[in-house]
Amino acid sequence: MDKGRNGSTLEVVAGNGLLHRRVFLVQGAGLVGASLTLLSARPALAEPLEIPPWMKAPGTHMSAYGQPSTHESGVQRVVGGTPNVVGSGVSFTPHHLLHGTITPNSLHFERHHSGVPDIDPDAHRLLIHGAVRRPLTFSVDALLRYPTVTRIQFLECAGNSGQNLGPQPPQAPAGVIHGLMSCSEWTGVPLAILMEEAGVERGAEWVLAEGADAAAMSRSVPLAKIMDDAIVALYQNGERLRPENGYPMRLFLPGYEGNMSVKWLRRLKVVSEATMTRDETSHYTDVLLNGKALILTYPMEVKSIITNPSTGLALQSPGFYEITGLAWSGLGRIRRVEVSADGGRSWADAALGDPVLPKSFTRFRMAWRWDGGPAVLMSRAIDETGAVQPTRASLVAERGERQNYHNNGIQAWAVAAGGEVSNVYA
Amino acid sequence: MDKGRNGSTLEVVAGNGLLHRRVFLVQGAGLVGASLTLLSARPALAEPLEIPPWMKAPGTHMSAYGQPSTHESGVQRVVGGTPNVVGSGVSFTPHHLLHGTITPNSLHFERHHSGVPDIDPDAHRLLIHGAVRRPLTFSVDALLRYPTVTRIQFLECAGNSGQNLGPQPPQAPAGVIHGLMSCSEWTGVPLAILMEEAGVERGAEWVLAEGADAAAMSRSVPLAKIMDDAIVALYQNGERLRPENGYPMRLFLPGYEGNMSVKWLRRLKVVSEATMTRDETSHYTDVLLNGKALILTYPMEVKSIITNPSTGLALQSPGFYEITGLAWSGLGRIRRVEVSADGGRSWADAALGDPVLPKSFTRFRMAWRWDGGPAVLMSRAIDETGAVQPTRASLVAERGERQNYHNNGIQAWAVAAGGEVSNVYA
Repeated sequence: MDKGRNGSTLEVVAGNGLLHRRVFLVQGAGLVGASLTLLSARPALAEPLEIPPWMKAPGTHMSAYGQPSTHESGVQRVVGGTPNVVGSGVSFTPHHLLHGTITPNSLHFERHHSGVPDIDPDAHRLLIHGAVRRPLTFSVDALLRYPTVTRIQFLECAGNSGQNLGPQPPQAPAGVIHGLMSCSEWTGVPLAILMEEAGVERGAEWVLAEGADAAAMSRSVPLAKIMDDAIVALYQNGERLRPENGYPMRLFLPGYEGNMSVKWLRRLKVVSEATMTRDETSHYTDVLLNGKALILTYPMEVKSIITNPSTGLALQSPGFYEITGLAWSGLGRIRRVEVSADGGRSWADAALGDPVLPKSFTRFRMAWRWDGGPAVLMSRAIDETGAVQPTRASLVAERGERQNYHNNGIQAWAVAAGGEVSNVYA
Repeated sequence: MDKGRNGSTLEVVAGNGLLHRRVFLVQGAGLVGASLTLLSARPALAEPLEIPPWMKAPGTHMSAYGQPSTHESGVQRVVGGTPNVVGSGVSFTPHHLLHGTITPNSLHFERHHSGVPDIDPDAHRLLIHGAVRRPLTFSVDALLRYPTVTRIQFLECAGNSGQNLGPQPPQAPAGVIHGLMSCSEWTGVPLAILMEEAGVERGAEWVLAEGADAAAMSRSVPLAKIMDDAIVALYQNGERLRPENGYPMRLFLPGYEGNMSVKWLRRLKVVSEATMTRDETSHYTDVLLNGKALILTYPMEVKSIITNPSTGLALQSPGFYEITGLAWSGLGRIRRVEVSADGGRSWADAALGDPVLPKSFTRFRMAWRWDGGPAVLMSRAIDETGAVQPTRASLVAERGERQNYHNNGIQAWAVAAGGEVSNVYA
């Protein structure tokens, strides 16, 4: 447990003070080893500990359903409504205040088109019909007897990060610019089993999914996706779905744009062609500069953001920092995340959290010794298909600055000499 | 997508109707294949869907911090206090009502010795002192600048399942008999880094950990564990720790008995020998039949329980069921879980949820066609060290029926002909 013999474990690997990721990869004393004085975030030398007031009397009792500390009451979803449309709007997951990869159910993002319905689970039914040999109706209790699967996977709204496509970079927290995404452990019934039980007819290629909200939110889903890894989700992070996430059941399509994972699922109709519903034509289309529009664009492609430092999280003093963020791809696993502290002139590999799961958030970390001067922080993810996260400039060149969907461009945060952090297009 | 040509995918693999696990392992239509009529949990043939009342008016708005459905208000921790001791007691995670592997923070089990302190995070300090070259004090803000790690790991109280060591099997839900365990994604600072910064002196072998509750809960931890995979946990399932789980910081010792992961951590003193605190001598010792007592027994060894079916979750009608539960080991990964439906006469391999993580919950599943007759369901886990979950009888033969700790014996649930489920010693 000697230290200080050399500085090799904290080797500088890219411009502006990025350090080798091995500090995050080691386990146990021998490997952390030398040069901890470089790593220090400057704790105080020890002072005698006072007996604080909370040690002088018993605390509160056990509780049936816990809540966060009152000291963390600022960690909330940021709610944004749509003017004059009752129950339509969004709320954002505050990723800049969170860590790890799991999003607590209470903070999962929301996007509703006509509010959150209060569904009686005993009265709710799921109908599978259309081009099937045996149309079937499932109650919640019936579904709970089927085989289930459990997977940790992200959900991202197609409009996530859309604010960053506008002409001026919004000066909002990372969790507001990029807060229309969350990651949960989902448990539900594979749709392949239910579809086989209904008996899909030859020639069917699509499924219309409809929700039991007042908007009857409807999307077309390729049958191949339904038979691959789609589930009817019943549990989220261990407990039954929350009302705002589709209670008592929702469609869940791993890696696809969030809107397609229809909440409050009531109907799956097997059909031969995409239905071209209002929700997939008037919304959720990508208008290109050449006037054409891409529709039925499904996978959320490879992407990453640094969650800390980010807007509003000012650096307090020079020295060691953990640069950390999230990376994900709707096409599979993250293979690699690179970080730059000099606006993209040099890059170094970040440490990836273990395990790296497909279509899931991967937490990445980079060690950084901030010298107190200006810096521009960026992250760039590569997924297992080899796809590389594009620059914002390359997306804008193709699409212009007037559309909102499928922005997976690189996010840049500028750190000023005083430690303030702002959103920049770099 | 044809079906029904043969029944091979639902091959019976052990007594009383256990079916091959491949139904849980497949992905996509081709592999599920045949014989779905055997699998059917009897959904109704389709009826026309009425427009329910919740589709006829907009629902409620987005919310800043969500809550469960009011229809799930029964999914709560079961609280048990200690008579005449303020703030001392337990609350149990209702595993029989949950699914997956993550325990929501609001339902994580509790064990307090003098209640939950209301700690001001700005005033809280962690002191590392004793046999170190440079005693250090850390504020929460200082710790938040250090490198972190994130891991999904279980926490189990040494007294979990202790009720099952009494002479009569308790007729309580699985989540009350076995509810002093939970599994979360923990994020925190590796203690190896902080200890190296303080500079541990030669000859030190132990660390005394003390909490900032009114009981000043204190335990001795081997220095080797501190330097291996111990962390100061700051985040749980993405958000900051809840008060009842140690806000603003706790010790977390993967795989060790829960009481050692000291909550509200305020002091780590590096010492040469175990301190023999009240909390590790008067409590948390295993009294054997020969009159000797085992103390300082740390890892929670290989174990599994079936969470469903279990007491109180009666079967409604013959046909297909998913038998599911949790397996874990404080010594590493789960290698295998076997299930029996005939009281241990025959066994078959359960499907294990992916990924199987070390010192974490693994969800297992077994396909079962219940014929409506009596059955006795059991699960038996084997971990990567080769350790096999023991029978209750073998534990009782060694220890008798008067001690409470470290019961990792096999749980048996009896299913009666009518579908009622009860706890039995088998």
